[in-house]
Amino acid sequence: MRRFVVVGQNARTASDFPLDDICGAAGRWDLLARCVQGSLFIAHDLRRDAELILVVLGEPDPPKAIRVSGETVRNLNPDERSTVALLSRALDERLPRNGRWIQVQPGIHVARKGLAQVLDEVPDVPLVLLDEDADLTGSQMPSRLEGDEATFVLGDNNGLTDEQFSEVRSRGALEIRLGPLPLHTDHCIVIVHNILDGARG
Amino acid sequence: MRRFVVVGQNARTASDFPLDDICGAAGRWDLLARCVQGSLFIAHDLRRDAELILVVLGEPDPPKAIRVSGETVRNLNPDERSTVALLSRALDERLPRNGRWIQVQPGIHVARKGLAQVLDEVPDVPLVLLDEDADLTGSQMPSRLEGDEATFVLGDNNGLTDEQFSEVRSRGALEIRLGPLPLHTDHCIVIVHNILDGARG
Repeated sequence: MRRFVVVGQNARTASDFPLDDICGAAGRWDLLARCVQGSLFIAHDLRRDAELILVVLGEPDPPKAIRVSGETVRNLNPDERSTVALLSRALDERLPRNGRWIQVQPGIHVARKGLAQVLDEVPDVPLVLLDEDADLTGSQMPSRLEGDEATFVLGDNNGLTDEQFSEVRSRGALEIRLGPLPLHTDHCIVIVHNILDGARG
Repeated sequence: MRRFVVVGQNARTASDFPLDDICGAAGRWDLLARCVQGSLFIAHDLRRDAELILVVLGEPDPPKAIRVSGETVRNLNPDERSTVALLSRALDERLPRNGRWIQVQPGIHVARKGLAQVLDEVPDVPLVLLDEDADLTGSQMPSRLEGDEATFVLGDNNGLTDEQFSEVRSRGALEIRLGPLPLHTDHCIVIVHNILDGARG
């Protein structure tokens, strides 16, 4: 399983925003929608061995985590608007305080979790923090990630907070950068997939 | 200059579609919008040394070509809706039959051109055809593309027609695939940028 965890610092945690303004009023849900595309889509199909967990921290009801599984999700289209329309239904769910995952659609679950609670559930190794200031580059990744299981943590356009960095680093994450330029979150996901697909070998 | 030429086989050539349905009625303008994101955006900035030429072949008035220059374009946001809103204004332009480029916004030009006429204008070498059935892989690309100038031709979700393939191949294009899986057009663009950025070296 390739798992991507993306933190949406200001992404709205209620579905009360207009779908015409997912970039503004929604707190950059457009960016999260592109992360769905990048992590789950290949041409004419989905990546069945991938999942995306969005950690959504905007107002009015943070934290929430939404998990989208490539193996079981249905009715997912590649455009931003329909993706946000589908995922935002999860924001209407009444969530138990104990953090239990609730299925809202096939392959889409939501829970009352922040980044720490999400990371508590995933295997610690290999855990990878994608960060433009890391020393290791993408070319050094494949040999260290030969297994089937890997979790990649990424920030949104605001990056991660110091506290979130500490949360990831305290779990022994490998830190990797994907190039000399700072890239969009969804583009990083696309590049990770391509490296692990073994295309360059 | 890194130049990407993307053929939108069914993308509408009039701006009469609703921005709420850029995936359907617009003939996959959502896909073309993501190609703008992939070719021109890095975090908090644009790639000034990149341009994208969309060859738009849908009804009612094909062919049209829209060129977006990273160096001079303004008011470009990363979300699909606003990108299509900005670019579709070019479809309202009255175009001379001689194929001359008309500027409609800073950094956005439109012309009455199909794929052949677009390729006639770009330097022949290096010209790269990105195709999932090619023999060469992405890892073999950098050494062949050391210069600053390169043009990459890509199809949309329908791929290229036989005639379009011939059009590109007749110009001596290098054919490259980017992995074992068929990928979305915009994801291919992101991967090409990352390879050429020299991230893996």
